[in-house]
Amino acid sequence: MYKVDLNSDIGESFGDYKLGMDEEVLKHISSANIACGFHAGDPLTMDKTVEMAVGENAAIGAHPGFPDLMGFGRREMKITAEEAKCYIKYQIGALWAFARSKGVSLQHVKVHGAFYNMAAKDAVLSEAIAQAIYETDKDLILVGLANSEMIKAGKKANLKVANEVFADRAYNKDGTLVSRKKEGAMIHDEDEAILRVLRMVKEGKVTAITGEDIDIQADTICVHGDNPRAVEFVEKIKRALQAEGVEVVPIGSFIKL
Amino acid sequence: MYKVDLNSDIGESFGDYKLGMDEEVLKHISSANIACGFHAGDPLTMDKTVEMAVGENAAIGAHPGFPDLMGFGRREMKITAEEAKCYIKYQIGALWAFARSKGVSLQHVKVHGAFYNMAAKDAVLSEAIAQAIYETDKDLILVGLANSEMIKAGKKANLKVANEVFADRAYNKDGTLVSRKKEGAMIHDEDEAILRVLRMVKEGKVTAITGEDIDIQADTICVHGDNPRAVEFVEKIKRALQAEGVEVVPIGSFIKL
Amino acid sequence: MYKVDLNSDIGESFGDYKLGMDEEVLKHISSANIACGFHAGDPLTMDKTVEMAVGENAAIGAHPGFPDLMGFGRREMKITAEEAKCYIKYQIGALWAFARSKGVSLQHVKVHGAFYNMAAKDAVLSEAIAQAIYETDKDLILVGLANSEMIKAGKKANLKVANEVFADRAYNKDGTLVSRKKEGAMIHDEDEAILRVLRMVKEGKVTAITGEDIDIQADTICVHGDNPRAVEFVEKIKRALQAEGVEVVPIGSFIKL
Amino acid sequence: MYKVDLNSDIGESFGDYKLGMDEEVLKHISSANIACGFHAGDPLTMDKTVEMAVGENAAIGAHPGFPDLMGFGRREMKITAEEAKCYIKYQIGALWAFARSKGVSLQHVKVHGAFYNMAAKDAVLSEAIAQAIYETDKDLILVGLANSEMIKAGKKANLKVANEVFADRAYNKDGTLVSRKKEGAMIHDEDEAILRVLRMVKEGKVTAITGEDIDIQADTICVHGDNPRAVEFVEKIKRALQAEGVEVVPIGSFIKL
Repeated sequence: MYKVDLNSDIGESFGDYKLGMDEEVLKHISSANIACGFHAGDPLTMDKTVEMAVGENAAIGAHPGFPDLMGFGRREMKITAEEAKCYIKYQIGALWAFARSKGVSLQHVKVHGAFYNMAAKDAVLSEAIAQAIYETDKDLILVGLANSEMIKAGKKANLKVANEVFADRAYNKDGTLVSRKKEGAMIHDEDEAILRVLRMVKEGKVTAITGEDIDIQADTICVHGDNPRAVEFVEKIKRALQAEGVEVVPIGSFIKL
Repeated sequence: MYKVDLNSDIGESFGDYKLGMDEEVLKHISSANIACGFHAGDPLTMDKTVEMAVGENAAIGAHPGFPDLMGFGRREMKITAEEAKCYIKYQIGALWAFARSKGVSLQHVKVHGAFYNMAAKDAVLSEAIAQAIYETDKDLILVGLANSEMIKAGKKANLKVANEVFADRAYNKDGTLVSRKKEGAMIHDEDEAILRVLRMVKEGKVTAITGEDIDIQADTICVHGDNPRAVEFVEKIKRALQAEGVEVVPIGSFIKL
Repeated sequence: MYKVDLNSDIGESFGDYKLGMDEEVLKHISSANIACGFHAGDPLTMDKTVEMAVGENAAIGAHPGFPDLMGFGRREMKITAEEAKCYIKYQIGALWAFARSKGVSLQHVKVHGAFYNMAAKDAVLSEAIAQAIYETDKDLILVGLANSEMIKAGKKANLKVANEVFADRAYNKDGTLVSRKKEGAMIHDEDEAILRVLRMVKEGKVTAITGEDIDIQADTICVHGDNPRAVEFVEKIKRALQAEGVEVVPIGSFIKL
Repeated sequence: MYKVDLNSDIGESFGDYKLGMDEEVLKHISSANIACGFHAGDPLTMDKTVEMAVGENAAIGAHPGFPDLMGFGRREMKITAEEAKCYIKYQIGALWAFARSKGVSLQHVKVHGAFYNMAAKDAVLSEAIAQAIYETDKDLILVGLANSEMIKAGKKANLKVANEVFADRAYNKDGTLVSRKKEGAMIHDEDEAILRVLRMVKEGKVTAITGEDIDIQADTICVHGDNPRAVEFVEKIKRALQAEGVEVVPIGSFIKL
């Protein structure tokens, strides 16, 4: 039987500022990436988000980002490997406290925004992230872009790794994501997106933007809860997966070292 | 045999900003209260501070403060009990990650600055702090001002508590600290301060500013490492304690539930 | 002819976080209080907000708050008079740059949230605010709660002052606002609120919660743009004022020293 | 008669964190670049720093940086031109309020750290900075690295520009600074540094690291006040300049459009 995880970034509100339809999207996903106070999130939001996730039986992971609330962690910052390590540890720990308070463990770590994108291409940064996770809790799963430096670094650090794929993004023939600045980077047709996801999950293949079939491992699919339309798509993709005999479960239930 | 702990606030640097003679004071204290990034401290500083403390065999505790770097956590902020709980958990967790990375456990939590002073007089705030600690890790010791609401709240929450005393401060007859705004609040004479500390530790008594002897339990003595003179005083107080047969050891080694 | 100003707090978004229906409420108000980056607002938001306000011919004022983004400036912070002065100057200056870039002047300063509420009752804080404004630009109008310490401080500092009233709040017989914690503090009936406002503007009277008529000067009415309902009420109150022969214009056009 | 300006970055303390020997270095420099609260500085520090600078007759300029206190503005951040413009305006305005309170005008703007270094090579960023300055106050002088994109952008924006040179840095033959990562980047010999500066000021020439003489315009020399040794060097360089008939005066007294 095929298994795949659906993950979404939640807990990205801050103080009086509300963002995302966390309650709704939590009903459909199996793993929740929770912001840890750097690019988004604050202690109260983290507490409530962990509680909501636990209530919906979603597995919980840290979603650490750059210390750039003003830019929502989406701007490249040239940090050192040492800084990367410490920022990751700090944020994992902060979320750990809320998870532990509710009697649950953290399942995974998925880095946010520009930090994720930079690490995907940067072995030094990825290794810093992997080491930080390993040193903090070697049982945590590193969620990284499929085929990226993050996955390599996670394996090298002896961490469990989960390959993340995107339903709505085109891939280059080397397995990397097509830059959003290029035409065709986004898959706008929902049915096409779903067919691609099903094939990634069941066959381990996806058609690159250049036409070739390439290998891709889909352990977890990134979905969004920004707006009602996005949440509907999450439901749709989940139903399609289940209809095709794919079980939607947290990565922690099937990823092995 | 008498036992007492010497604790000091360290790790209060931030980015390029350096504060305190952490390396020097660590040679003399038994417990280190490490800033957690709210009133002071940043992930790199926390990492280095934990490493230094471990190297000097000082027990490690979280030193959570108000989210007010600009005011160094020394300004009263009217936060709710819910906010207090979440701020404490977040900061304990953040420090936990660095301790765990070095293979050590956290021993205690001592709240910082205005948060400490407000909680000392406020049962609601103190209970929020105690619950936060208990929910995050019920083995952590709550360090609170001797005779204050914090000690009561810690006991009520079924936490181990450590009564903190100050060598250089005068006490009111109800056991509270004389406000720094009043004359006689500070004990400037070092020898007098040391004699007072010895008596607190060995007899459980201190002379109040009004002349009466009052009861006080001295589990841990707060010392400072702000300047060379302060560090010398720490050495001096430690030697005096040892000369009088008082063992200087971390609270974790003698505080029981 | 009667004149009154309608003011609203806008520009309270931050980075990716959006708050308030600024575009809609700007169509109806005569003065805009723009957040300056401490409790809310960021440089890009300030730039866009000033541009929008200029486009709608709303007069522009600074809306400085406490340095507490996490609490949206709504939590009391015990700052010194010196800190208050510097925080006010900093924020006025920051907004001034955007206004000057668009070729407009700042009309007024209205302090935000807990800073406003604390100053209303605290002569020292109010005088610090008034001095800060005077020293930065003595032509700025200080908008303060009618009958409060802020108004007194503004006059003492030789600033033009504008008395602010609230359509939806009950008043004590000494002219202060009934605390929101007390029953009857809010006027929920829109028609009643409008009748009260009209009377405040035209007769300078309002019925206190205890039944007496008291004197109140209504130079500017605080309105909200948080949601569609609030914006509708702004329209309604404006139409009612105009129907009763009250001109809705910026305070700068009628407040004199 | 030759004229040159000596400038230094001051006001880089934050809250309880003190940095730099501002009082000492202010006695020797002609222009002060004052941090504006993003990479360093806070409202109280800005107020005191402006007051000190006025007391020492140093001309005052804004020293805006990236919103990265944790990294002291020394880490590259990929911000947009729009963000750059707004960050510059915000910070100029904030400082303007303190200068105006003391009855002085701002003379110049010198961007800080990674923002300065990125802009030096990036025409788009430099033009954003120049436009921000022009739109806020077209009389402000843009201080930029000699021979850099900043100088070009300032001229293009019709701003007065001041070419900044460094006594302790080696130059490439294209007039750019030798990267600190390369050997020979720093001129460690103080006498050699002074001779180089004198030649830059009087002849408009400097010997590149590759041996050729290149053209360089030295309007203002960057000096440091980090430590007693640095301050002594400032005195030494000033005496050397004066002994050679070079007047040390603020750029505002000799830079023309």
